[in-house]
Amino acid sequence: MTASAAPPLRVIPLGGLGEIGLNLLVVESGDTAIAVDCGVMFPDEQMLGVDVAIPDLTYLRTLGPRFKAIFLTHGHEDHIGALPYVLGEFDVPVYGTPLTIGFVRSRLREHELPATLAVYEREPICVGPFAVEPFAVTHSIPDSVGLVIRTPVGTVVHTGDFKLDQTPLDGRLPDLGRLAELGAEGVLLLMSDSTNVEHAGVTPSERSVGVHLEQIFREAAGRVLVTTFSSHIHRMQQVIDLSARFGRKVGLVGRSLTSHVATARDLGLLGVADGTLVDLAILRDLPRDQVTLITAGSQAEAASALVRIAMNAHKQVVLTPGDVVILSSRIIPGNERAISSLVNHLYRRGATVHYGRGVPIHVSGHASQEELKLVLNLVRPRHFVPVHGEYRHLVRHLQLAREVGVPADGCHLLEDGDVLEIGVDGVERPERVPAGRVFVDGKGVGEVGDVVLRDRRHLSEDGLVLAVLAIAQQSGDIVAGPDLVSRGVLADEASPEVIEGARTMVLDALGAINPESRTDPAEVKEEVRKALRRYFKRLDRRPVILPFVLEM
Amino acid sequence: MTASAAPPLRVIPLGGLGEIGLNLLVVESGDTAIAVDCGVMFPDEQMLGVDVAIPDLTYLRTLGPRFKAIFLTHGHEDHIGALPYVLGEFDVPVYGTPLTIGFVRSRLREHELPATLAVYEREPICVGPFAVEPFAVTHSIPDSVGLVIRTPVGTVVHTGDFKLDQTPLDGRLPDLGRLAELGAEGVLLLMSDSTNVEHAGVTPSERSVGVHLEQIFREAAGRVLVTTFSSHIHRMQQVIDLSARFGRKVGLVGRSLTSHVATARDLGLLGVADGTLVDLAILRDLPRDQVTLITAGSQAEAASALVRIAMNAHKQVVLTPGDVVILSSRIIPGNERAISSLVNHLYRRGATVHYGRGVPIHVSGHASQEELKLVLNLVRPRHFVPVHGEYRHLVRHLQLAREVGVPADGCHLLEDGDVLEIGVDGVERPERVPAGRVFVDGKGVGEVGDVVLRDRRHLSEDGLVLAVLAIAQQSGDIVAGPDLVSRGVLADEASPEVIEGARTMVLDALGAINPESRTDPAEVKEEVRKALRRYFKRLDRRPVILPFVLEM
Repeated sequence: MTASAAPPLRVIPLGGLGEIGLNLLVVESGDTAIAVDCGVMFPDEQMLGVDVAIPDLTYLRTLGPRFKAIFLTHGHEDHIGALPYVLGEFDVPVYGTPLTIGFVRSRLREHELPATLAVYEREPICVGPFAVEPFAVTHSIPDSVGLVIRTPVGTVVHTGDFKLDQTPLDGRLPDLGRLAELGAEGVLLLMSDSTNVEHAGVTPSERSVGVHLEQIFREAAGRVLVTTFSSHIHRMQQVIDLSARFGRKVGLVGRSLTSHVATARDLGLLGVADGTLVDLAILRDLPRDQVTLITAGSQAEAASALVRIAMNAHKQVVLTPGDVVILSSRIIPGNERAISSLVNHLYRRGATVHYGRGVPIHVSGHASQEELKLVLNLVRPRHFVPVHGEYRHLVRHLQLAREVGVPADGCHLLEDGDVLEIGVDGVERPERVPAGRVFVDGKGVGEVGDVVLRDRRHLSEDGLVLAVLAIAQQSGDIVAGPDLVSRGVLADEASPEVIEGARTMVLDALGAINPESRTDPAEVKEEVRKALRRYFKRLDRRPVILPFVLEM
Repeated sequence: MTASAAPPLRVIPLGGLGEIGLNLLVVESGDTAIAVDCGVMFPDEQMLGVDVAIPDLTYLRTLGPRFKAIFLTHGHEDHIGALPYVLGEFDVPVYGTPLTIGFVRSRLREHELPATLAVYEREPICVGPFAVEPFAVTHSIPDSVGLVIRTPVGTVVHTGDFKLDQTPLDGRLPDLGRLAELGAEGVLLLMSDSTNVEHAGVTPSERSVGVHLEQIFREAAGRVLVTTFSSHIHRMQQVIDLSARFGRKVGLVGRSLTSHVATARDLGLLGVADGTLVDLAILRDLPRDQVTLITAGSQAEAASALVRIAMNAHKQVVLTPGDVVILSSRIIPGNERAISSLVNHLYRRGATVHYGRGVPIHVSGHASQEELKLVLNLVRPRHFVPVHGEYRHLVRHLQLAREVGVPADGCHLLEDGDVLEIGVDGVERPERVPAGRVFVDGKGVGEVGDVVLRDRRHLSEDGLVLAVLAIAQQSGDIVAGPDLVSRGVLADEASPEVIEGARTMVLDALGAINPESRTDPAEVKEEVRKALRRYFKRLDRRPVILPFVLEM
């Protein structure tokens, strides 16, 4: 097939262009379609009562057997989290680096889904007219890659999420040489990470965090608790190394954290000296200045380990004055108040808390402006599509591209559902395809296999349970409610027995947690939701549950 | 009365110690009680369906006629906003500086409340055993003061909200000489602003913002829109001065902004050359590079001027590419997502947006660590109570005080409702008094005199209306609902006519706004709330209205 006879390249973002998260991009040529990444988005306050959102899969369904494979850039949830739902419908192979595939494998195990998972090899992977090969990038998770996709009309480069860390902890540098080579060859289309386009300069190296952590470790007289994203293997490596240096044993608190650490160790991506990682039971008997804990809960998620510890409601970890807590992670927008409340509670325990005011105890995994310009200049693409960002990030990234000389007619602002068609004769923008968010309810532990996809139809079919209660802000006492209102859930939903049963269930659940936990509205909501989900499940119903907690 | 026979000094915070906002502090001696400030707190997502919170007034009620006067430090809503509710119950004089009293006067006019308002004079104001005099401080509103309160057991110094701006725009320096003098005399108790205790160093001068604003004005080819807090007179002064320099006329968009500007001009606290401030109608006919607009909406409040402009739904202001928007204000925690969405919409209009990533186009009005230490060192108090802050701020401010030598037995962590008693024989901590938040519904324009105080009792008496609807995230179409559920509002609330009438009202209200506005959940909620409030008011009911908007 000559280039002039080649079908146009079609690029269709189904998620991630217009929001942070939910990344899923379709690349098509003729009768072959592949996807880059397959991620979720975590809910904000607007998405009440749902656990997580995945991209609308309608367009993938219209592709049918033309949809051939999924290529992953790295193992973050917003890039792999929707796989369990997609693989439940589509039997396509999934390619990734060893760590990424390791994380996917443990996610799929929870869902008991069979799947064809393969690790990138030295040779490009050929799917129909496409040949796909990864190139190394640095990011806040090891083993991250960008993708080179050879297509009938030219070469596509997708950076994935990246930064250009010149002193990465594992010595695996971003492969700028490869980008330069591709640029010299000629690149048809570049798609590059826009997350940090608002930041001037260069994102600091992961190593820069170590310097500040070391200072804290040096001065700490009590236990050191560090929380970070459960996939941030290099951050944990630094904490483990510092602990070893300062004579501390390390315990892990949190399920996904423990699982991620195990996967990374198996692959040789996390180095831990024998005897450094120990059971929490052993740590209990050690002097406090010989103990480090790495805990989940960096976003103050309700019911997370760190929130329970802050509320004095954790079975194994009780904070005492002199203990040091380090929140070594960014605040995801929307979580500010929850994290602020978490910090207040940690102070009530007498802990010293480091949470990113003053010393930089976290750095981003995304490239800043100078790095983005450098990549644009190396690759010198004919066309450019900024990816991974809200509308303003995409606009600003396009402005950067124009500044470094990408031709105006090659700069494309795409949002989810938009279609960009690049043929040998030029570029077209055909009609949009369906795109949006579908809500998933019930991803929690113990509810595996019980996920409910909620689109408009389901929401109206399954009904809604609203639970309203008022909590005394200081004591945690329940001063009003729970008042329960159900709508479209049960034929006899108005019956006093059903409502009373649910009320009792909620009261019992709240009675079982300690009063300080009840001063945290997020915690109360989570308990109410769990209790009502259990209750209605017994009645064979799965309504959307919306708990409302008024603080008095 | 000799000192040894003097009754103890009682200090009782009823708000502001354990949260940002809601400031109200009671100071008592014998049978006289006075209050410092009387503020509101704006609701977060946990306080669904309410407009604003005021402090619990139970304790003031128990004081009865012993409660004699209110002394104000400055004119921010979190220091004066609860006055309409307090003065409705208590006939006490209110003292403040001219601008503060000016702002109070226009607030009270809305509520048609008579009150005794007085401006601080040269001589201290004597109330029972107290003599109160103000001293100048700098803050993000002109005419701010701290208070010196002479009491039978010693001198109390309250800083109010402050920073130590050495180059204030109006040349009115913070009166450090007075603080040094008081320190030399001997101060019994210092209460100092903890808001920015997490920030190292010194807060930059208000003037530093001007340098960056100037750069933006210099480069702007289209209109310049600036949003800031409506009481930030000095920020507006800088914008007005720059506009005059660059040949731009200035228009004001927003009701409270216009009212505040008028008050400040009347008092000579805002200098505006003739012909600079003009009507929006006149601005419409000017070339775009001769136009500046100062708009309300810095927190992306639903239905605010800037949000309407961003949504292309403002009657008088339509943005066009080339226009420049400056968000010259901090993001109040909890508003991150709304502001992020606002910025995205402004970019959709083609505007260039400056929102504090990169250039500092806002500075705080609160003192950082070095300023706080300086005040502690000048005043050298025997006792210290950090005020204005969440729990962690209070803890850290106490740590600072210890570092600069305040004796440990003089450092007191008080939260709302706590009582500190300082007598000639020592300090006691008697039982707590009632404290908390009371919710107010209906502060909006056109609903003056229609405020409803909602404590636990009212909430259960008035009932609850829940309105759930789903909006298509991109088109703004209503894809499901509104579903209405009322509880305890009307005897015949289940009747289809009542529900259908309310549904129609909501649909009409949403039909009347443009589709892009409907993609903003906050805007939709506000419209739903207003429509339902109107509807139930006609039925002579004032339920709590909780709108829920699901984005699809």
